[in-house]
Amino acid sequence: MKLRHLLLTLISATLAATAQTKAPQVFPPDESGYETWLRYTEQALPSETAEQLTRVHVGVSGETAEAALSEWSRAMEGFFDREVKRVSDPEQAGVLFALNSTLGEEAYQIEVAPRLRISGGSERGLLYGVFTALSSIQRGEDRAAWAKSSEPFISLRMLNHWDNLTIDPTLGSIERVDGSTIFEWPDLTRPNPRYEDYARMLASVGINGVALNNVNSDPAILSSELLAGVAALADTLRPWGIRVFITANFASPVLLDGVKTADPLDPNVQAWWRAKADEIYALIPDFGGFLVKADSEGRPGPGTYGRSHVDGARVMADALAPHGGIVIWRAFVYGRDISERTPHQRAADDVANHGSYEFMHLAGEFPDNVVLQIKCSVIDFQAWEPVHPLFGRMPDTRLGIEMDLAKQYKGYDSTIGWEGPYFDYILNHPMGDGDPPATIAEIVAGKAPGHEPGLIAGVANIHDARDWFGHMLNASTLYTYGRQAWNPQAAPEAILRDWAELTFGDAAASGVVELLDDSYDTQAKYHGLLGNHSLAELQHHYRPDPWEPLFAKKTGVTEHGIGFDRSSETGSAFLDLYPEAVAELYADPETCPTRFLLFFHHLPWDYEMDDGSTLIQFLYDQYYEAVEEVRAYEDQWRQLLGKIDLERWAHVQEKLAAEAWHAEQWRDIMCRYFLEVSGIPDEKGRFTEGTPESPHVRVNTGFWRGVQDYRARVQRERERIRAITDE
Amino acid sequence: MKLRHLLLTLISATLAATAQTKAPQVFPPDESGYETWLRYTEQALPSETAEQLTRVHVGVSGETAEAALSEWSRAMEGFFDREVKRVSDPEQAGVLFALNSTLGEEAYQIEVAPRLRISGGSERGLLYGVFTALSSIQRGEDRAAWAKSSEPFISLRMLNHWDNLTIDPTLGSIERVDGSTIFEWPDLTRPNPRYEDYARMLASVGINGVALNNVNSDPAILSSELLAGVAALADTLRPWGIRVFITANFASPVLLDGVKTADPLDPNVQAWWRAKADEIYALIPDFGGFLVKADSEGRPGPGTYGRSHVDGARVMADALAPHGGIVIWRAFVYGRDISERTPHQRAADDVANHGSYEFMHLAGEFPDNVVLQIKCSVIDFQAWEPVHPLFGRMPDTRLGIEMDLAKQYKGYDSTIGWEGPYFDYILNHPMGDGDPPATIAEIVAGKAPGHEPGLIAGVANIHDARDWFGHMLNASTLYTYGRQAWNPQAAPEAILRDWAELTFGDAAASGVVELLDDSYDTQAKYHGLLGNHSLAELQHHYRPDPWEPLFAKKTGVTEHGIGFDRSSETGSAFLDLYPEAVAELYADPETCPTRFLLFFHHLPWDYEMDDGSTLIQFLYDQYYEAVEEVRAYEDQWRQLLGKIDLERWAHVQEKLAAEAWHAEQWRDIMCRYFLEVSGIPDEKGRFTEGTPESPHVRVNTGFWRGVQDYRARVQRERERIRAITDE
Repeated sequence: MKLRHLLLTLISATLAATAQTKAPQVFPPDESGYETWLRYTEQALPSETAEQLTRVHVGVSGETAEAALSEWSRAMEGFFDREVKRVSDPEQAGVLFALNSTLGEEAYQIEVAPRLRISGGSERGLLYGVFTALSSIQRGEDRAAWAKSSEPFISLRMLNHWDNLTIDPTLGSIERVDGSTIFEWPDLTRPNPRYEDYARMLASVGINGVALNNVNSDPAILSSELLAGVAALADTLRPWGIRVFITANFASPVLLDGVKTADPLDPNVQAWWRAKADEIYALIPDFGGFLVKADSEGRPGPGTYGRSHVDGARVMADALAPHGGIVIWRAFVYGRDISERTPHQRAADDVANHGSYEFMHLAGEFPDNVVLQIKCSVIDFQAWEPVHPLFGRMPDTRLGIEMDLAKQYKGYDSTIGWEGPYFDYILNHPMGDGDPPATIAEIVAGKAPGHEPGLIAGVANIHDARDWFGHMLNASTLYTYGRQAWNPQAAPEAILRDWAELTFGDAAASGVVELLDDSYDTQAKYHGLLGNHSLAELQHHYRPDPWEPLFAKKTGVTEHGIGFDRSSETGSAFLDLYPEAVAELYADPETCPTRFLLFFHHLPWDYEMDDGSTLIQFLYDQYYEAVEEVRAYEDQWRQLLGKIDLERWAHVQEKLAAEAWHAEQWRDIMCRYFLEVSGIPDEKGRFTEGTPESPHVRVNTGFWRGVQDYRARVQRERERIRAITDE
Repeated sequence: MKLRHLLLTLISATLAATAQTKAPQVFPPDESGYETWLRYTEQALPSETAEQLTRVHVGVSGETAEAALSEWSRAMEGFFDREVKRVSDPEQAGVLFALNSTLGEEAYQIEVAPRLRISGGSERGLLYGVFTALSSIQRGEDRAAWAKSSEPFISLRMLNHWDNLTIDPTLGSIERVDGSTIFEWPDLTRPNPRYEDYARMLASVGINGVALNNVNSDPAILSSELLAGVAALADTLRPWGIRVFITANFASPVLLDGVKTADPLDPNVQAWWRAKADEIYALIPDFGGFLVKADSEGRPGPGTYGRSHVDGARVMADALAPHGGIVIWRAFVYGRDISERTPHQRAADDVANHGSYEFMHLAGEFPDNVVLQIKCSVIDFQAWEPVHPLFGRMPDTRLGIEMDLAKQYKGYDSTIGWEGPYFDYILNHPMGDGDPPATIAEIVAGKAPGHEPGLIAGVANIHDARDWFGHMLNASTLYTYGRQAWNPQAAPEAILRDWAELTFGDAAASGVVELLDDSYDTQAKYHGLLGNHSLAELQHHYRPDPWEPLFAKKTGVTEHGIGFDRSSETGSAFLDLYPEAVAELYADPETCPTRFLLFFHHLPWDYEMDDGSTLIQFLYDQYYEAVEEVRAYEDQWRQLLGKIDLERWAHVQEKLAAEAWHAEQWRDIMCRYFLEVSGIPDEKGRFTEGTPESPHVRVNTGFWRGVQDYRARVQRERERIRAITDE
């Protein structure tokens, strides 16, 4: 890097000497984004202070305390170009690392006088205190403000990677992420400095658990060869306070070792899981447990053998219990027959009801070391979907919440859309029975009546881009997620501000915050459809293809209107699943937030919206506003030129320009579609049928129309070719 | 766009008012890259000249002359903000569009006095003249220099799109291109302004034929529904002088209409192709013909029925002949048993020999309206592979050459690597029998003894990115290809210079040229392996995975050395396929160009290279040099800041930064691999085994090693799951 900086300086000098150019003479040194918010750039503190900060007494022994010291040393080198001295006499130290048994296990306390003392309830608490203090210094806080104490609200704060062990031709290297896994499957034993940097990044925002592989689980993860690799990775992550989980394919006994069945009540199956758990814990003593997707989307599960989810979870839970491990059982199950339990067939037909009716009747029946992990929103991870009602329907059950950081319906890494406001809505949503009603955060934290501590999980947006995310601004979502998991009541904008200051420095932070803070609503204007299903293309989850045959079915589009009636009276009775006050709010189109309007209501095209426009016009306007807003991002970003190094500046500028193109595609395709189905022209005359105003319309527009027999023909072709060539 | 420019001006003013920033005050207005080199930006010519240039007399009638006028009008609006007036009296005109029957059909002549007269041997010649004159004006040439005349060397100059009709899970939307097709399959009848802009771009560099769809051909392209769409697209392209071709699946009679066989000697099959040709020509009177991949990579072909390539080509050729169409038969066929015709089994085992022995014995036997299309290089489209010897082995046959613009082994659109020098090497390579020997360009142009005119085809690098290429600098390759196809002897650097001036303006052009002109060699330093096979990852064609089991086989790697012996004496006798003088050059490691060394020779790790280093050290050094050179691109690009609009500047800057990351991955993975297999450390100590210096090593490193039974297990899993879930 140093050579490059020198070159850059020379070039700057050349530019300065070239009279006719108005190009800037000085830019901050280039950065690749790889350091994310842990940049540790030069700080202007008195040299006496710097000197003090580099004399550290570590009054704790253990590998996590050593990790904390290594992070401190790395930071001091960046801040002050100084090496840390480890001093044995606390009186000689400028910084003390200590334990304090009066604190909660993961809690920390930072005191600034007479010397800087960072105490933890455990080594992990110390580590979190160290990251917090370093953040304070990086952000230029006054020393007095460094004094802080905190403890996490939710005890298990996870990332779930949907990384595949091999490249799957339909799912790719990572399901729902447009990039490759950072993990060197299956040879995780090879040293790779990226693993430790990954651990540092996660630990810095308090993440303490990771499930490494896809919930669509390859059973090979439980083979002895791959477990050796998982153990090696666990050794790298452990000093940073991170426990490893893996996903388990329910049929593993059959698939890996030829057991005749995976029936959870079969003694051979029970023995297999016990033996497998013993094998794992011999390699990884602090192994976290299994994350399981069962009886869902074609995956095997207890239902394959006529058994219940409780039976299924128990066979694994019993095997893990002696070692302290847990089973995380996913509630994302739909498509099975639930009509016995629903009030009427209309309810059974609504996919929004499936997860709830699949699990409600099992409340209180799961073993103690099982956590039921529920997706935060009802149908999937779409833009502004309402919160999942199952959180209020599972008393006496440990619950976890699964959030989506990867933005699978929201443009992946091609768009921004900082998720802070969305997570805030979900976590602080009232759902319990008490007065005031418990929030979802309280329920999953085990702080609501009838709930032991559960967990929070984010589906990771990390891949092998040089900046980890493929879009440097999307680092904000991981940072915010970690901080919100630690403290769900923290103001998202304050977290965003911290991230922006750490990542881009003080001069640029306000501009970055201003750009991002409403970006979730902006992306929802084109990716979303007022809470309605926005899945528009089958293979990828983010391209619009409204002519795809399922689109009308999934959005409730008719020639008269759009949306779903989910009322008790005339609809699918989904609303009945919520607590009464919540149901009331959403049940009335007048009080239902606009962003959820079409999730709960089927409305005619001429329905009058709050702003007086018709529904169809409101939709048209949204698509046009979205493009304007994304174009405005570009202009806002321009204002930061010169305040950010050019490499990162250009990266973001290019991503924003691409996003504008993306938003224009949505606008041109969706408006054309809505014009066709409604027959109602845009009042503002911005487009008309058959004359797209831009060349952005994509191939998948019209992909499905008028060629109903086309797919069948292709299939016939394939079979016939196979017969002919007989390969 | 105008609003955005206004905003930009305001922001610039804000920046100017902010004293502490050194950011630039003025940048050229933003551009998206969509206009490519046809930007028509404001020109400072005397208003009298401008006025003259907008009075046009069109002395030719026809839709191509109208297209030429529309292009002229578009340009005048951009250059001078003036509308063109069409004048009926030539004496009143400042510009004359005319025909001149003394010129060759596609030739043009531009005269500048007494008035600007652009004449063509046909409307198409006129169109090419118009584009040439507009280029002269855009580049600021003196009026005297506008006078030019030219005619194309090769008469059929094509693009081949490998676009799929549906998204194929393994091939994507376009095979070997990381993006989506611009064509709205299958509803091509919908108006889309992109199609005309596409036609303009191609016509501006003289491309006059396109094959629209993938050579791995979906038979549905020949269905009546889709042909209606193809006809609509042909109507859009026709005014721009572009004829449409499509690919044909050899088994189409069976697959589309249930004919019992596709045997080319069967009368029903012959009748089917005749009827299909009649159907097509009723829709598209100037339809070009079929491009066919047969008996290759699992595709059906005449061999399926025990017939020869000649038989196979003839059944289609006979159907097209009455209408003036041709069959383009691809010679990219390998893997069939050729041992009867090779001198020994070693020759039969070398895949480099397959294409030649598959076709040589058929020289002179193809019908007159068949062109045999040969890939430019021997094995595939890798970096610096030697030229295909079959061009010298097919007397009395019309030959075509297939070049790769999509850079499928060269990083797709993630890297630069301007292909001008590579195309120049290929096209001007001596290969014929004469004295001086005919070049490949002369052979395919039909200007060498025994060859009627054939064609040149480029596999398109166009997709639906806003700049068409996904990397604005890669537009240079399409531009250069078109110009070289027109005149293979043109100096590539001069063409590059034209492109740079048109695309980025005069102030930036030298910097752009300097950046690109050696970029092909730079990418070859990491993508290539001194002419040897560099295919390193099976699914994608550009990621390194040297541990993949076929890698050693394909590169001739042993613990002692690397490369292939292709000599007559001890090797595969591939060299015998070249004319004697060519064979001699390549046969001696001392005279063989370094870039092809390992294609022709198996050499020990300690072989002494020209520069005195050992072969292994030379390889290590190449990977390190490549990274340095790509890093230098970034620094060169920095020098253009302020000379190019920020949107395009940032796009390229971001691509170059990503390319550096890409090159680092190749370096770190390949060096680690070569260290393992050779056991010879880097003399410069830049890396050692087991300690990668960077976090760039990717998942696919080690993907294949030590898990030999892993894939089989996954396969077993899939089958068992299927059995269990019985979906």
